[in-house]
Parts: sequence; C-alpha cells; structure tokens
Amino acid sequence: MKVAWAGSRETLELSDRMAKLVANDPVFEKFTRPMLGRKELFKNTLRKAAHGWKLIVDLRLTEEEAKWLRLYIDEPAYTDLHWGMFIPAIEGQGTEEQKKKWLPLAQKMKIIGCYAQTELGHGSNVQGLETTATFDPQADEFVIHSPTLTSSKWWPGGLGKASTHALVYARLIVGGEFHGVHGFIVQLRSLEDHSPLPGITVGDIGLKFGNGAYNTMDNGVLRFDHVRIPRNQMLMRVSQVTKEGKYMQSDVPRQLIYGTMVYVRQTIVVDASKALSRAVCIATRYSAVRRQFGSRNGGPETQVIDYKTQQSRLFPLLASAYAFRFVGEWLKWLYMDVKQRLEANDFSTLPEAHACTAGLKSLTTTATADGIEECRKLCGGHGYLVSSGLPELFAVYIPACTYEGDNVVLLLQVARFIVKTVSELGYKQPVGTTAYMGRVATLMQNNCAVRTAEDWLNPGAIVEAFEARAARMAVACGRQLAKFENPEEGFAELASDLVEASVAHCQLIVVSKFIEKLQQDIPGKGVKQSLEILCYVYALFLLHKHQGDFLAVGYLTPKQALLANDQLRTLYSKVRPNAIALVDSFNYTDHYLGSILGRYDGNVYPKLYEAAWEDPLNDSDVADGFHQYVQPILKQKLHSAKL
Amino acid sequence: MKVAWAGSRETLELSDRMAKLVANDPVFEKFTRPMLGRKELFKNTLRKAAHGWKLIVDLRLTEEEAKWLRLYIDEPAYTDLHWGMFIPAIEGQGTEEQKKKWLPLAQKMKIIGCYAQTELGHGSNVQGLETTATFDPQADEFVIHSPTLTSSKWWPGGLGKASTHALVYARLIVGGEFHGVHGFIVQLRSLEDHSPLPGITVGDIGLKFGNGAYNTMDNGVLRFDHVRIPRNQMLMRVSQVTKEGKYMQSDVPRQLIYGTMVYVRQTIVVDASKALSRAVCIATRYSAVRRQFGSRNGGPETQVIDYKTQQSRLFPLLASAYAFRFVGEWLKWLYMDVKQRLEANDFSTLPEAHACTAGLKSLTTTATADGIEECRKLCGGHGYLVSSGLPELFAVYIPACTYEGDNVVLLLQVARFIVKTVSELGYKQPVGTTAYMGRVATLMQNNCAVRTAEDWLNPGAIVEAFEARAARMAVACGRQLAKFENPEEGFAELASDLVEASVAHCQLIVVSKFIEKLQQDIPGKGVKQSLEILCYVYALFLLHKHQGDFLAVGYLTPKQALLANDQLRTLYSKVRPNAIALVDSFNYTDHYLGSILGRYDGNVYPKLYEAAWEDPLNDSDVADGFHQYVQPILKQKLHSAKL
Repeated sequence: MKVAWAGSRETLELSDRMAKLVANDPVFEKFTRPMLGRKELFKNTLRKAAHGWKLIVDLRLTEEEAKWLRLYIDEPAYTDLHWGMFIPAIEGQGTEEQKKKWLPLAQKMKIIGCYAQTELGHGSNVQGLETTATFDPQADEFVIHSPTLTSSKWWPGGLGKASTHALVYARLIVGGEFHGVHGFIVQLRSLEDHSPLPGITVGDIGLKFGNGAYNTMDNGVLRFDHVRIPRNQMLMRVSQVTKEGKYMQSDVPRQLIYGTMVYVRQTIVVDASKALSRAVCIATRYSAVRRQFGSRNGGPETQVIDYKTQQSRLFPLLASAYAFRFVGEWLKWLYMDVKQRLEANDFSTLPEAHACTAGLKSLTTTATADGIEECRKLCGGHGYLVSSGLPELFAVYIPACTYEGDNVVLLLQVARFIVKTVSELGYKQPVGTTAYMGRVATLMQNNCAVRTAEDWLNPGAIVEAFEARAARMAVACGRQLAKFENPEEGFAELASDLVEASVAHCQLIVVSKFIEKLQQDIPGKGVKQSLEILCYVYALFLLHKHQGDFLAVGYLTPKQALLANDQLRTLYSKVRPNAIALVDSFNYTDHYLGSILGRYDGNVYPKLYEAAWEDPLNDSDVADGFHQYVQPILKQKLHSAKL
Repeated sequence: MKVAWAGSRETLELSDRMAKLVANDPVFEKFTRPMLGRKELFKNTLRKAAHGWKLIVDLRLTEEEAKWLRLYIDEPAYTDLHWGMFIPAIEGQGTEEQKKKWLPLAQKMKIIGCYAQTELGHGSNVQGLETTATFDPQADEFVIHSPTLTSSKWWPGGLGKASTHALVYARLIVGGEFHGVHGFIVQLRSLEDHSPLPGITVGDIGLKFGNGAYNTMDNGVLRFDHVRIPRNQMLMRVSQVTKEGKYMQSDVPRQLIYGTMVYVRQTIVVDASKALSRAVCIATRYSAVRRQFGSRNGGPETQVIDYKTQQSRLFPLLASAYAFRFVGEWLKWLYMDVKQRLEANDFSTLPEAHACTAGLKSLTTTATADGIEECRKLCGGHGYLVSSGLPELFAVYIPACTYEGDNVVLLLQVARFIVKTVSELGYKQPVGTTAYMGRVATLMQNNCAVRTAEDWLNPGAIVEAFEARAARMAVACGRQLAKFENPEEGFAELASDLVEASVAHCQLIVVSKFIEKLQQDIPGKGVKQSLEILCYVYALFLLHKHQGDFLAVGYLTPKQALLANDQLRTLYSKVRPNAIALVDSFNYTDHYLGSILGRYDGNVYPKLYEAAWEDPLNDSDVADGFHQYVQPILKQKLHSAKL
C-alpha cells in the first residue's frame, strides 16, 4: 500500500530518504516553534532555509530530491515563493534573453525573488490591480508607482523581509493608454546591505492565524514612489513594448498562462491529499489509543475507533485522502497532456482542463480544510492542544481555500463552463471530464436500478448515479437561466445553485478517477481490495451527504438512498481492521506529523504529560505576576495595590 | 432592534454601560495580545483580572453588572472558573454548613478555586475517572490520590497557576468499597507564598490553539500523592460519609445535578449567539466595504455583499445568530421553570428539559464554530490576518464543541430520549418540545401542501414541515432499532443515523421558538418585519441544506423543495437593505469586536496598513538573522558560514 500511495517504488524510496534526512537533523526540530515570538520564529526559519539550501548544494540533491526535502522541512519560508513562483514565472513569461540573464542569478540564489501580484484592495480581480507601470520613452524606462493606498502590494510571501527582487504585476501605461496587467522584475533591496532602495517602502503585514503556522513567512506590504526600471525588465514573451513606445503582442499564444494555472492547481490538489492524510493519520492512530466508556466487568474501555459515530466521521476522510491522492496523480497526467498539446498549438482541450483543475482545486482544498478541523474534533479535548499538531496543521493549511483562486469564485468559473457545455450540446461534442454530458438524454431518462444494498457495490451503478445527478443539475440550471432576459443577471441571481451544480460535477470527477485507478493493475496482497472498499466509502458517503441532490433530480428513490446508507455502515466495519495499516502507508515520520497524539509508537499520554512541563509558564512554581496581581486580591489588599 | 436583541431596554442600557467602561479603559487594551509570549500574555491577564475585580469592588457593581464587565473584558481568565464553576458547585452540592464556611471565602476571593474533573484519560466518561478518595476512619480524613498517569487531572481552567483550591472529582472508596464519583474541596497551594502543598504536583498543560485565544488561561495538570483532607471537605449535600465510615444517600434528589446542567448549557447557548453575532458583524460590515469585480465604465466595483454567493453564505448565519439569541432567551425561561418544579419535587419535565438543552448546546455550538470560520472565509484573504479578529474568535470559541459534553455524545443522548419517547407513545403523553410527537399519526400521513414559493411564507407550513421530518426520522430509527435483538447493539450500529434524527429534532426546536417569539408583541418600527424575514431565512436555509431528509421521508416533493429555494433567494434580497442595521443592533463596541475589518466607521484599509507596521518584524529594515542566514547565500559564501 505504501507504494500505491507514493505512486512508485522509486518515489517511495526517494521521499523516505529525504524524510529521514530531515527528521534526524536537529536544525529542523519544530516542537518549540509555536512558543517562539515572531522575531525569533522568523530568524529560526531563515536558519532552516539556509541549512536546507546548504544540504541541497553539499549533497548535490536533484531538483526532485530538493522538493521533497523542502516539503519535509515543513515550514513555510521565503524560498517557497522563490522556487515555486518567481523562477517559474520568469521561465514562463520571460524572453530567451531575459531567462538567460535572470535565471542563473535566481537559481544560484544570488538574488531572492517573490511574486507581487495581490494588493490591499484586489485579490481575485487581477484586472482591477491599481499599481501602474508607465513607459517613459525618453529614459527607455518604466516608472512603477502605487497611486492609492489600496494599490499597496499586500500578502506576497517572502516580500516583507527576505526578497531582493519582486516580480511586480502592474497596469501597463504606454503613451497614456492602458494595456492591461503585466509582470515587471523590480529590485527592492540593495545587494550590498539589504536596505530598501529609494522609492521603495517594504515591510511585513503582521500576524496571521495560528501559533507558528504561516508566521514563519514574511508576507509583505510594498509601495512604490515612482521607481524606475529599465525597459527590458518587463517580462516580454507574450507582449512587448518597443524602445519607441509601441505596444505589441507576440505570436506566443496567451493560452500558455492557462497551462501554468493547470500546473499550479494540480500541485495544490496533491498538497491537499498530503495535508488531509496527515490529519487523518493523527486522528486514526489516536482513536485506536484513546478509550472511553463501555468497560465491562472492570476491563478496558472501548477504543473510540470502534464507535460507529467515530467511524462515520473518520473513515470518509481517510477515503477522501486516498481519493484526492489519485485524482492528483491523474491531474499530473492531464497537465503533461495539455502541455504537449499546447506545444503542438492544439488548444482544444484547454478550457475543459482549466475548468477541471479549477474545480478540483476548490473541491479538494475545501474538503481538506474542513477535514483537518473534523480530525481535531475527533481527537476530543486533546486535539485543542498545540502538541496534537492539528491546530497548526489547520492554521497553516486554510489559506489554500483562498489563494490561487477563491474556492467559490472558482466554482462559478466551473459553472460557466458547464452551462456553456450544456448549451452547445446540439453541435459540439463535450470532451474529457465533461464527455458524459454527451449522453445527457439517457442520463435524464434512466433512473437508478439498485434493489439491494449489495447492488451498490458496483462501479457502474455508482458512476451512473453521479453522472445523472451532475447532468440533471446542470440541465436544470440551464433551464432556470433561460428564463432571464439578461444572462449575466441570471447568472448572478442563480449563483449559489450554480455552485451546487459545479460541486456535483467535480465530485463525479473524483469518484470516476478513483474507480479508473482501480481498473489498473495494483500490486501487493490485498491492496486493491482495501482501496476498493475506500472507493465505495468515498462514493457512498458523498451520496448520503448529498442525497438531497440525488432525490431532488429524481434519480434515486428514498428506498435506494436508504440502501446506500445501509451499505455504507457495512463498509465502515470492513475499513476498521485495516485502518491503522492504511494510515501507516502514508509513511510519515513522527517529525513530519509533528503530533504527540499521532505518534507511531502510540505512547501518547506519557509524552503529553512530559511536553506540558516544557511550557514557559512552568519555568517557576509561582507564576510571574502573582505577587503583583493575585496576592493583593487574596490578602484583601487590592485597594492599595499598584496594578 | 437593539432592544429586541438585548432582551429589554434595561439590559441594553446596563450592557452598554459596561461595554463602554471596558472599551475606554487602557488596561483592557487587547490589540497587542497575540504578539505576547506565553508568560507576558498570562501576566497581562492576571493584571486585567485584578483590575476588573477592583472595578467591581470600587464601583460596587451588581452581580449582573459584574457578569457583563467580565464578558466585555473578553479574555479567558482563572476568574471565569472561580465564579462560573467553583462557587456554583459549592452552592449546589455543599451542605448548609459547608456553604457557610466556603462561600464567604470564595466570594471575597480570599481563596481562588477551580473545577478539577477532567483527567488525562477521561473526559466524557465521568464515571471512569480514576482519581481516588479513600476514607481513613482513624484520622477522619480522605486520602486523595492519583494512582495512574492517566488519572492526572488535565484541562481544568485556572488550575495551572492561579488557584489556591480545587473542587476535585474522585472515586470514593469507603471500607474498600467504591461508591461512585464525588466532589472534594482540596487546597492546592499555600495561602502564604502560593507554593504547591506537599503531595501536590501542579502546572500548566501548555499551548492551545491560536495566538492569544485560550492561552491567557492556565489550564492545568494536577497529581496527588496521598494528599489528606478532613472528612468535611467532601461535598455532602447529596451523599454523606459518616465519621464511622458509613456511606449514605441523603433525601436530596440526585436530579438536582441535572438542574445545574440545564443552567450551564443554557448559558452556552446564549454565548453561542454572542460569538456567532460577533463574527457575522465583522463579515457583514467588511462585505459592505470590500469591492471586487463588476466595475462599469471605470466606476467603483461591486460591494461583495451584493453577490448572491456571499448573501447565501452570510445571511443564514445572520439569521442563525438571531435564532440562537431567541432560543437562548427561551431556555432561560425553561431553566426557571425546571428550577421551580424541582423545588416542588416535580421531576416530570426534567428528562425532556435535559435532552432539549443538551441538544441545543450541541446544535448551536457546532453551527457557531463552523459559522465563525465561514465568516472568516467570507472576508477573503484578509480574514486570515489576526487583526481581522476572526482567527482569535475561532480559536477561543471551538472548545465549546467539546467541553460540557462532546457535541456528538450529546446528540446520542438526545437520540436515546427521542427513541424512548416514540416507543412510549402508546401510553405516555410527550411533553414540552416533544409534544408534537403526540400527533405522530397525522405527521406520518399528511404531506406538504405548498404549491407556490409564496406558500412558504407561512409559519404553520414551516413548523409542520420540520415536525413531520423530525417525527418521521425518529419513527424510522425506532423501526430500524426494532430489528436488532440486542437494543444496545442496534443503538451502536445505527449511531450516525440517530445523530441525524437528533439534529432534525433540535432544528425544529430552534425554528419553533423563533416563530413563537414573533407571535409576541415586538415594539419598534419595522423590527418585527425584519425578524420575520430572518426567521424565514433561517428555516428555509435549513430546509434547503437538509432537503435530503425532507425528500427521503417523503414529506416534500422535489418541486416543493425547489419552491423553497426560490423563496430563499427572494428573501436574501429582502435582507440586504437591512443587513448593516441588523448587525449594528448587536451594539458591539470596536473594542469588543477586536477587528479592523469590522470597524464601525468602515475605515478598514488605512487601519490595516497602519497596524502592519506594529509587528515586531518591522522594528528594523533588515531582519534579525539576515546577516547570519541570508547574506551568506546571496554572497555565495554558504560553505564557510556558521549556521
């Protein structure tokens, strides 16, 4: 199962090697992180980042190894943006000349870059960005300026303190005319003493959710006061400004940027499966350690994992972690496919691939954020302790629901695509994940044939149910929209119904890809059988949770929905004996999990007890402040006390 | 509307006075709280608690005023447990003699007490507590002891550092026989120098979720090594141990403790409406400030509150805040009613009142915890900043889902009561909130009569729909249970279905009480109309969210569910013009809200910008650690750097 989770034996070995490298290195210790003040915390992150980079250089790690290393260091740092956004953006949007100049500097870390797009007043609406880049033909320079308070760059990671350079997105003005938003490489700080350059105001935006969490990152604020940069620092692969002040589009297709979005969102889906699986691993292990009620004749109490209420909340999340893992794997394939097609100037599958990744980003990150918090609750009171690892995991994960496209805004994009697909069915064959809509007539007509609980253990029956639900909801939205004279007004009015239809479509994709995965050869004794059970759990859990949809569109009868629920209960009993093995297969070190409740050896209570004494409040028997603020109360001398 | 929210003009004025007293006192400043290290943070809380107590004494505040004052100080402190648990427990479980001795000490704060029940290994299962209290007749003393690691007291607030005394729950052993769990007053620390007494190990359990949040509280760990206390420090109102070592039950009914639980849970419901309303106030105000997309001809963009997706997430939470407020008000009445009956030895309504408060505690706290996080997401990226106030509000609120009864465990208790009620229908008339089950035959038979969207604007139609759903789900559970030979096995197997039936029952209560409230006279122009709209929003939102239930039990047709959803969209448009007024009616000061996004004056962006510079990371242009850990990278001298 470890191989199935990792994707291949090679990946398993490589990631295992990196995980142990990090876990055994005292520099990467993270237990004390939540206790540090902001400055100390940040300094410690700089140290870890430097040590990590030193390891990468000294051990001559491959790019793949370096990625795993950074993952297991498990601490957001400026390097994430340097490697994950700054460099890829130059690779994607720079000309050959620009790449030749900037990439070697960045790859050797002679400069440190960040990605400065979001502003105080603008996130989702990129076209609304207010920062300006005005071309001055006399000087052959751009003047970068922040005309309003809300135009201040706000949020970019690595910007506040670490970066020397930023890729700044600004509205291009040439000859008094606006030409949309473009990227510019701007130096922010001196390469000598790191002080901000003239005209640049830069700093950190302050504390974020959680104790350590994202506070290791210097998310920054940045303002420009007429800062000048050479013309050749505008990224010019797609559009150019000539020396003479002429704005031109190159013949490089603009669709390329959508290819990048497909890539970034695919990695977010893979990360979702990682984050959710960590939480599930902690909650599952602790549910086997923890006992409560049900003692008979003075014997031990029942392990909480044996309670059906625990199983019905935990096992669907376990199944979701696997489902997201496999849909992420498939998205990797999709990205490669899109990339090859783009290189061959075939843009036909791009809109579908774009909608699909947008939807899956939204679906998986929402489910993961909620799932982590649910896992915390499943650990009872102790889940609220930072040493459980779950509060930090939650706090560090939730931005994924907002960055790279707000999850609701993304679902509305998916809805637009679905509605369009439905409206064009008469003359355009839907492709990829929307292919099922080509069978809409059948899907509208045929209802579910399930007659017993066992009938639900049938991939065909399950896929058809999800297809029918998604298709019927899409068609219903189309019909509702048709009642409006102004389609945009209709779209706005029906937005929340459209979101529900998008969710139905995206859930179908995840269910189908899980089922497709199981049609492949999966080695290892009993591995495929275990995964089949999880696949059914995932699908039937969704079916039960959203039974309102399935019933409302008339595909299921109440009786059939009940049978699905009966089957689901049976499946939980089948997951139970393998539950621990299924989370051990994630192959996470105790260091990476960072949770006393989720310890591999199950030695929870002694370690919780030990850890408590590490809190600074326990440095002395009598707390700081007692003599000033408590003793006067006890001694009834508050009146004369100096507070 | 302010009066309607506050409950009365007197309460409004009183609470307003206390809110302003706190807001205008610099000692109660809370903006810097999340930046403090643990020790500083705790010391600051001690200071606030002392200052608050000084105000209470100096200004001779009434008990009611003192409660509001503590609420608006808005910082968990040891005093919460002293006043909220230690004193009430002595009042409820102590004999007259014990009350006479201990209450004056506690009320003057000559001693500080906490409530030490939960152990490292036992939370929900109180009967499983392991701490022992063994009677020694020779010495006329109890020996309090922690026989195992898991018997360590763990979590009690105020225990770690502040309390001098604890009310310790332990298994009573008299003459070698166990007599269940009882409460004992145990001194923990010297009243002279506050050092722990011999045999006592006491400390703080370490960091919890969030930056400031509950880390201002010294949740503690406590172990006893054969600590001796006089016999008269066992709380003996209900049971006694005589000098001779005889264990006896008094004639005081044990049901009294359920009366206390009704009280405590009622306050939790009221607190839920406060916490949710704070989050909703922040999100609503900021949704009116924030604009995104939809600019036409260069004009301003659309306020995000005008988007239907925003309304469909935000307005149901606004409605929920009001719904919980009114059901909390009703619970106050219920508690008074139960109390009067108990005093008259009438226990007939107690089981129903107990189930009802347990269920409402679960329902409102779960919805509030989820609702706060939803409000955070509704604020986009900026909701992730601590200065938005929402991360702290979430982190400090979520324990409510676990303490005083885990929310799922409570729903199972409700389920037991419902199933019992159904099974006894033949010979026992259901009372109070279960009275509707007396009409089960009709509710099983008659289906919904709604034919247009307008038909849903009918309190009768709505209540009947919720009654029919709850009754039919309860009956279905009963039938399923009957198939099991062993009822306990059936109950365990069907647990998650039983939980769903409980939720249906509890939602019915909230909806009914909201509707009952509207049948009263509510002064103020347009106030009642606004509340009516919110009431419909609350009910139809639930109906849409759980349409699976309504359809599965066959009460609604898909068409009728669709009509409800249509009506819901119309209602959102009616809430929109009043949304700001509806949150202003909570009458919260900016101090209490603690949120830059939720500022009353809407001056969000300049204040966010200002606040950023307060972060310690911005103390210097070049961050601590730069020279050690970043410059060597940039200068390509990492090899010789000392990391």
